[in-house]
Amino acid sequence: MVNEILLREAETFLHDRIPITRAMDIRVVAQGNSGFVLEAPVIQNSNHLGTGFAGSINAIATLAGYGLLWLELRADRGVYVVVAESSIRFLRPVHEIIRATCLRPKDSKLEKFKSAIATKRKARIRLEVVVEEGEVVAAQFQGDFVALKS
Amino acid sequence: MVNEILLREAETFLHDRIPITRAMDIRVVAQGNSGFVLEAPVIQNSNHLGTGFAGSINAIATLAGYGLLWLELRADRGVYVVVAESSIRFLRPVHEIIRATCLRPKDSKLEKFKSAIATKRKARIRLEVVVEEGEVVAAQFQGDFVALKS
Repeated sequence: MVNEILLREAETFLHDRIPITRAMDIRVVAQGNSGFVLEAPVIQNSNHLGTGFAGSINAIATLAGYGLLWLELRADRGVYVVVAESSIRFLRPVHEIIRATCLRPKDSKLEKFKSAIATKRKARIRLEVVVEEGEVVAAQFQGDFVALKS
Repeated sequence: MVNEILLREAETFLHDRIPITRAMDIRVVAQGNSGFVLEAPVIQNSNHLGTGFAGSINAIATLAGYGLLWLELRADRGVYVVVAESSIRFLRPVHEIIRATCLRPKDSKLEKFKSAIATKRKARIRLEVVVEEGEVVAAQFQGDFVALKS
């Protein structure tokens, strides 16, 4: 139940603060030890071939990374996160639902990241996001995110 | 005038076939020897900091690449283009207008690409896109695009 409230809170944050996520119909569907998961329908994010548009897939993967960090850092109100660089490989088309899972980094990596924010007011972390449809991996995304404490 | 008609045709193609480009308010603003240029306002593509959302910037850069190839290959109706992989570095925030220019590759590179499509029915090309606001480079994008002839 607490988890469900958090998911809705994260979704409201995305829809309110990054308005294009409404047009993309992005939903926050899960978060936990395995990672942070977003979904969006291809129908709102289709390309000229009727499959998932690469730009939308990349945006959803980026937001999965943001979302994971937003939840990790939400207790610390003076911190904001930006993406510094990212890369993506497209392996298969997506036909109905774009599902992006940002894999939760090891606790030790997250602790090091949070500790650098506290002491240096700036920290960088690399996150991996996998985009799947059913059992099929459609894209692999890697992003370097930077947290800054004001 | 012919150029203006082409720009509107490319914009209509994007808006009709990749619907999220309407919500992003993407405009085709130039094409020629220096490249293919798209713009979109930050107001439709803002993030939680009120600057250009990384996902939108990446999508606009990807579409600048698509757009350049669409114009190059439009005479050949059996060809379609997909992006295989891409990477992007974000250097500065964008405040008002996201402007992405896909640099036109050298003629020799484009000729080699078109010739591979004709003979092998498949060809790959790397494109560079620069995202600017005024004189400031905000992001640098590189994408590998694949053309397939049915």
